[in-house]
Amino acid sequence: MEPSNPAYKDFVKTQFASAPFIQHLGIELIDFAPGWVETRIALRPEHLQQDSFVHAGVIATMADHSSGMAAGTLCPAGRKVLTVEFKINLMRPGTGAALTCRAEVVRPGKTLSVTEARVFNEDGKVIALMTATMALVE
Amino acid sequence: MEPSNPAYKDFVKTQFASAPFIQHLGIELIDFAPGWVETRIALRPEHLQQDSFVHAGVIATMADHSSGMAAGTLCPAGRKVLTVEFKINLMRPGTGAALTCRAEVVRPGKTLSVTEARVFNEDGKVIALMTATMALVE
Amino acid sequence: MEPSNPAYKDFVKTQFASAPFIQHLGIELIDFAPGWVETRIALRPEHLQQDSFVHAGVIATMADHSSGMAAGTLCPAGRKVLTVEFKINLMRPGTGAALTCRAEVVRPGKTLSVTEARVFNEDGKVIALMTATMALVE
Amino acid sequence: MEPSNPAYKDFVKTQFASAPFIQHLGIELIDFAPGWVETRIALRPEHLQQDSFVHAGVIATMADHSSGMAAGTLCPAGRKVLTVEFKINLMRPGTGAALTCRAEVVRPGKTLSVTEARVFNEDGKVIALMTATMALVE
Repeated sequence: MEPSNPAYKDFVKTQFASAPFIQHLGIELIDFAPGWVETRIALRPEHLQQDSFVHAGVIATMADHSSGMAAGTLCPAGRKVLTVEFKINLMRPGTGAALTCRAEVVRPGKTLSVTEARVFNEDGKVIALMTATMALVE
Repeated sequence: MEPSNPAYKDFVKTQFASAPFIQHLGIELIDFAPGWVETRIALRPEHLQQDSFVHAGVIATMADHSSGMAAGTLCPAGRKVLTVEFKINLMRPGTGAALTCRAEVVRPGKTLSVTEARVFNEDGKVIALMTATMALVE
Repeated sequence: MEPSNPAYKDFVKTQFASAPFIQHLGIELIDFAPGWVETRIALRPEHLQQDSFVHAGVIATMADHSSGMAAGTLCPAGRKVLTVEFKINLMRPGTGAALTCRAEVVRPGKTLSVTEARVFNEDGKVIALMTATMALVE
Repeated sequence: MEPSNPAYKDFVKTQFASAPFIQHLGIELIDFAPGWVETRIALRPEHLQQDSFVHAGVIATMADHSSGMAAGTLCPAGRKVLTVEFKINLMRPGTGAALTCRAEVVRPGKTLSVTEARVFNEDGKVIALMTATMALVE
């Protein structure tokens, strides 16, 4: 996939770093290229739910933000990415010291992009699967 | 709808209060009865994304947790609620000082319950719509 | 909700009647007004799946088309409705002689509308719940 | 992935062939192995919607049934597959003489399996993406 914005690297890095909630949770941008993004979160006690698994909201936030940034790698200059909708299947409990996420653009578009993201535990097992629609707005 | 657990009130209050991520974000249980739950979040700077709107992950966390607690009001004693999947449409940007959420059980079940949740801004406008499948596990 | 197209009634009737797959399945437009649509299907043997329940695809088709037409009641003149995405929870098996569906616009928009649809059996019990994003395209 | 039912091939073929709606639409089972299924539909005029694209309901039916059969390849003997929920993103219009679908099990389970399906046009371009939860019921 070809980036339409030659400065897409700066765009993604800046967008990622400037989202307070993502910084607050400690989600890090690990790697990216046109069409995909990889992220990581070191788990903390405040990320858990009542059964000591990672809260679905943390996993969804990670997958949503990674998906938006994947769409962002192909976003035309001057536009921004907003989530229209996403759906997530939570398939295994989130446990361990860290989670990773890989998000990819399945269908890039001018105004809407469709993405898929998978979240993995430290054993490399997929714990969540997200599909999303991202709007590229002026 | 009839609660199958006579102690459902204590169950919901305890479950809600014992989720670290929910306490961390400041999501509060406002009211509930068999089949529904209402919650509130006072917005803070760390809840925002890069465009100063509330991050989709915060909205999704609120709707997911409220949905799980709505299912919890009808959960048999000795079981717990786990999210199987959810889908959320983000329809307006989240802004203002607080958001509220109302989650309802659409289809109660013995092992799976289906819920719907709506998140509102301070003007009473719906900003997000979630449907979810909740597992009631031993 | 206010229709932006004064001829919305003709638009919805014409759009509904001109979809071959809907005619083929026998889905009928029962009633509509700005923001909502009600439809009905008389069930036939060819609508079933391997366990003699209505196939999920029939239920999804009914809910999707009804949702699109609900968005169509508010669609500006000169535009058409296309499904961007939908999610459906199948909560009870589809049985009996007929099913009905009510679809509503939750959030009308200029280019995207969000809808919700519920499908009911003859006992008035909800058997399926759909949320969808509809594009209003030129 | 390992099939738990040694007779899984007969199970899938029988289940596929015994669904009236699938036969009625002309969806064919092309190939399968433990964990995945491939299907095909030759398009007919009655499969279209009002703009002469394939109706979303046809695409959803194909993806849903293929997903159920993918789960069926790993289904224990004596159980059957029922759709709990699915979500589909429609990314390109369905056109041409035929569509194909590949459905895979992302997370096999004892009572719930999560699947992903992609539908392709004759140019090999993905036109739809579905994730689903399938119940394996006695």
